Amino acid sequence: MKIKIARDILLSSLQKVNSIISSRSTLPILGNVLLQAQNEKLTLTTTDLDIRIKTELNADVIEEGQTTLPARKFFEIIRELYGDEVYLENENNHMSIQCSNSNFRLLGLSAEDFPLPLESGTIRNFSLDQVELSKILNLISYAVNQDDTRKALNGILLSINENNFTSVATDGRRLALVEKNIDDLSGNDGDIIVPVKSANELNRLLGKSGNVRIKIGENLITFVLDDSTIMTTKLIDENYPNYKQVIPVSFSREIILPREEFAASLKRVSLVVSERNFYVKITFTKNKLELSATSTDVGESKDSIDIEYDGPDTVVSFNPTFLLDPLVKVDSDDIKMKMNDGYSPIALSNDDGFLYVIMPMRNR
Amino acid sequence: MKIKIARDILLSSLQKVNSIISSRSTLPILGNVLLQAQNEKLTLTTTDLDIRIKTELNADVIEEGQTTLPARKFFEIIRELYGDEVYLENENNHMSIQCSNSNFRLLGLSAEDFPLPLESGTIRNFSLDQVELSKILNLISYAVNQDDTRKALNGILLSINENNFTSVATDGRRLALVEKNIDDLSGNDGDIIVPVKSANELNRLLGKSGNVRIKIGENLITFVLDDSTIMTTKLIDENYPNYKQVIPVSFSREIILPREEFAASLKRVSLVVSERNFYVKITFTKNKLELSATSTDVGESKDSIDIEYDGPDTVVSFNPTFLLDPLVKVDSDDIKMKMNDGYSPIALSNDDGFLYVIMPMRNR
Repeated sequence: MKIKIARDILLSSLQKVNSIISSRSTLPILGNVLLQAQNEKLTLTTTDLDIRIKTELNADVIEEGQTTLPARKFFEIIRELYGDEVYLENENNHMSIQCSNSNFRLLGLSAEDFPLPLESGTIRNFSLDQVELSKILNLISYAVNQDDTRKALNGILLSINENNFTSVATDGRRLALVEKNIDDLSGNDGDIIVPVKSANELNRLLGKSGNVRIKIGENLITFVLDDSTIMTTKLIDENYPNYKQVIPVSFSREIILPREEFAASLKRVSLVVSERNFYVKITFTKNKLELSATSTDVGESKDSIDIEYDGPDTVVSFNPTFLLDPLVKVDSDDIKMKMNDGYSPIALSNDDGFLYVIMPMRNR
Repeated sequence: MKIKIARDILLSSLQKVNSIISSRSTLPILGNVLLQAQNEKLTLTTTDLDIRIKTELNADVIEEGQTTLPARKFFEIIRELYGDEVYLENENNHMSIQCSNSNFRLLGLSAEDFPLPLESGTIRNFSLDQVELSKILNLISYAVNQDDTRKALNGILLSINENNFTSVATDGRRLALVEKNIDDLSGNDGDIIVPVKSANELNRLLGKSGNVRIKIGENLITFVLDDSTIMTTKLIDENYPNYKQVIPVSFSREIILPREEFAASLKRVSLVVSERNFYVKITFTKNKLELSATSTDVGESKDSIDIEYDGPDTVVSFNPTFLLDPLVKVDSDDIKMKMNDGYSPIALSNDDGFLYVIMPMRNR
């Protein structure tokens, strides 16, 4: 293998594939990036055995071939080089890297030891807008379960039912959901669960325009991005719990809240909560929302916001973190709080398909 | 105590005093900031028993008094408040904090439990330019010894001899020094050792103009900054080693190196060094400087820079970290390397009083 390549493009391509590289892997080959030079293209591939990212870039291929190099070290070298063009020449997995006055010889491992891609046919196949998908992931991924007790909850549910595309995340204590009507999804009905790590990696790769093509196979999903970057990841092969049953069928009250003001106030008031008293009390009275918290070791806090409210006086307590999470992710001016009373589940929603359901706390 | 105070000034003043607050202190009172309201001023004081920082700010004092509050929590509350003016009212060390619609009650501790300032007369007394002192500290403080084996080396030596002001830091393997001629130092001859933590705190407080007044007492030094912030710290009561004996009396060769290019090249080449082979080899040949490194597990690197050099071919090896440290701190275009051969100490210097001495490594 012998190629000439633009340094800045090589650098940005390595950035795309390198994030799944773990320095703690027990298999040395998983710390390496696979380089394949063929047909005026250099292909870079990394894998952690669950996720596989591949990107292709133009190169002046003088001699075809392949090898693997330590991904982080290779990236650092390319980053520190000074010059526009880099010459790479591989001989027996010893890669010579040359740029301006700099010469490196980096020890690699045989490409034959690099894990093969998982094979899977394509059962379903559709496209989504990259910006829209990224927005959806931002709105819900924080709500995924962080511990390993329930495997299905460690992922994001993507559910297609005719042209209805629903994305769900929950940790059993709160649920975040985005429902969208998207054309051209017909024939793709079904549910899949994407591991949250994969969803976050995908989100990092999503661009500021264009589509992402999604191919779903048997326990495998592939995302094809416009810039010839392809990410494949295993799916979580479990049944997602019936999330619909935690969403109340109806609400008796809807209150419009100024999102940023509410978030700032909540953040402020929650400064005094302690581990033993981890809740903020919210009191609705006529045209006023009052937030308060107290803890025996720090002190007390109280804040109020003017709102339009004409219902019965109501007190409801929340874990402030759970309430704040969606407020900082949504980008609309207002957010709608839907409730029945201070004991049953409460929902936050916007006009763009976002719904967040949270159970009040018992402390009041 | 009852005062009205501008929120932004209170916030920036808390930032000044809070950095020495440790969350791990076993004495709860050391996590608190002392507030004293008197004569239209609020004084904030913190201490870690070695360092004490005090700052004064204008306030509308309605009722004089004092208390202490958890420093971090108080800062967070002031930061999150929304409004220009804050009302503070203390009753039995319960501080009520009010700003716009927000009300807090924060539990404090009695001001009587706050450590008293260490007393010390003033033996010497002089002023330095704040910007200049900050530059000096930046140029040398990284070279201070990090472990506790030799107490004197955990500080920065400030030595005054007539109008000669010398600042020194060393860890026994490399030495950084700045020598300045400063008027009006007469009568202040002597050596003191300032702990590096205190020097770093001072550097953080130093402003972009004006002087800092320095008062040296028995084992105590006080820095008075223009904005009525005062920092006092214990000195290290040890004899500093005779650093002059490690500086060669003369050098047979002086080579001008382009500082940034040299630093970039060194950083690049050192990417392949490993713990077992932690050195970079530097080769001087006619009008050329070559840098190279090698390690059995990563590979090899080589780089070269055009320089003016007409001396004998010389090879010298360095710990790349020790060589890079001063190169990124100096701000001149060029740096001078002074040497005799590849075995004896080598110096880096600029035209502004900076000198750095490093011993080459034996690996060649």
